[in-house]
Amino acid sequence: MLVFGGTRSASLSWNVAKSMKAEVGKSEIKAFPDGEKYVRINSAVKGRECTVVQSIRSNDDFVELLLMLDTLRDLGANQVHAVMPYLAYMRQDKRFHVGEALSAKTILKLLYEVSDSITTINCHFLNEGGEAVYNHIRFMNLDAMPILLGYVGSKVENPFLIAPDKGSLSFAKAAASQLDCEFDHLSKTRLSGSEVRIDMKDLDVGGKDVLILDDIISTGGTIVEAAKLIRKGHPSSINVACVHGLFLNGIEHFKGEVDRLTSTDTLDNPVSKVSVGDLIGQSILR
Amino acid sequence: MLVFGGTRSASLSWNVAKSMKAEVGKSEIKAFPDGEKYVRINSAVKGRECTVVQSIRSNDDFVELLLMLDTLRDLGANQVHAVMPYLAYMRQDKRFHVGEALSAKTILKLLYEVSDSITTINCHFLNEGGEAVYNHIRFMNLDAMPILLGYVGSKVENPFLIAPDKGSLSFAKAAASQLDCEFDHLSKTRLSGSEVRIDMKDLDVGGKDVLILDDIISTGGTIVEAAKLIRKGHPSSINVACVHGLFLNGIEHFKGEVDRLTSTDTLDNPVSKVSVGDLIGQSILR
Repeated sequence: MLVFGGTRSASLSWNVAKSMKAEVGKSEIKAFPDGEKYVRINSAVKGRECTVVQSIRSNDDFVELLLMLDTLRDLGANQVHAVMPYLAYMRQDKRFHVGEALSAKTILKLLYEVSDSITTINCHFLNEGGEAVYNHIRFMNLDAMPILLGYVGSKVENPFLIAPDKGSLSFAKAAASQLDCEFDHLSKTRLSGSEVRIDMKDLDVGGKDVLILDDIISTGGTIVEAAKLIRKGHPSSINVACVHGLFLNGIEHFKGEVDRLTSTDTLDNPVSKVSVGDLIGQSILR
Repeated sequence: MLVFGGTRSASLSWNVAKSMKAEVGKSEIKAFPDGEKYVRINSAVKGRECTVVQSIRSNDDFVELLLMLDTLRDLGANQVHAVMPYLAYMRQDKRFHVGEALSAKTILKLLYEVSDSITTINCHFLNEGGEAVYNHIRFMNLDAMPILLGYVGSKVENPFLIAPDKGSLSFAKAAASQLDCEFDHLSKTRLSGSEVRIDMKDLDVGGKDVLILDDIISTGGTIVEAAKLIRKGHPSSINVACVHGLFLNGIEHFKGEVDRLTSTDTLDNPVSKVSVGDLIGQSILR
């Protein structure tokens, strides 16, 4: 097995290769002055099984991965596996309005067109890990919550787990069971567009290490608002953890409101302390 | 027939629809804060034939088009035609070095996966228009040179046509035949990387309206150098025309060196005065 990394996931791909005791594939990837991606595979891949690790955070990342996968096939690789630790567009999995694109379907379909298997992590529209089928497209959805919780759980003494909304209650329940602690969820009402009202309900967080858990944080606006409310209940600490940390407004946004912010390294950021390298590596070996 | 325009080719798509007397398709396209594209089709397309016009200047343009095409199909459109007046990656059609991506092949293959036909204009690696086959992928390659020449030919009195290199001599010959004028080519030697030496040879351009013709201009660096040399031969004017005007350094770059700069509207720019709307519209009607 050869493990290649795209530009978005270079260091994570080394962790994956290490976990599998696999060879790191050599490639050269750059952008031309007009923005086109240039891809060159520098390892001999003919007849070999190859994995490409590349989170899709932007359309540039996506095209780069498509080119890498198709080039490996074209060069005679035996099997080509696509691993997207973070995969954009997964929140567009159904039509909220008539005529909308099912972008998740299109993206998965195109990836499948140039690979033999597709793997992602905590795909937003599925609550459980394991083999998933969406619109006839079969893929592997890994669950990074247990390793994320293993890390943050070791940092706190008296955890109280809070899901950001009722929809996330199922993974909050599983997480609370892992940490053997209480859990509840915030009540979130979407007022208009991006305006959201958060209700504390009657959460008794006094002296507790509150842990707000989410699969993906975009800006974190709602979570920062929630943290402000929770602080009024005098918790011992407020901790926020997510699998995919987009942090579109930067992590400074959380300072003063959140005591500890943690994400996995599906996306590289200053708090991506939990590596999903083993999770990916072991799933490929299985 | 319904004609949709992507964000890169909105006004050109109206010209296409007008030329065909076809209905303009309604759509809503925007970018989410995280950079993901949002696509929504607002016309009823079930059972109808649809064309999407979208030049691919960036990876964002490409993903937007893929989403539009697949959404039209998903909404029950009868036939979905992809028209990319400018199509990035077409200069990566062969391996110049071992292991390089055949990006042109991958891009065409993925487009074909979500459409019933693909059309582009003056694809760089083909000299002639008409139906083309590249790596088993069948597509239509339209030739905008005649309409470009029709326009620039009407602006000059005593044209002398110059191809930027020997490789472009075949279309220069056809162009000279259309304008009934002399033609020749520059001698270009690539010294290292982007450094190029241009030789004037013994072109007799005195009193002539020199017309440098190219299918695509990226920065135009070589052409500006050529114009400086040609000026020494005391031409009446120096004119530069291309189908695809990328102009990565802006058109200011040509000022003072070139008297008239013209491109088609496969890419929108301040000198894109020749519309390919009719060319596309009539090719779809055929």
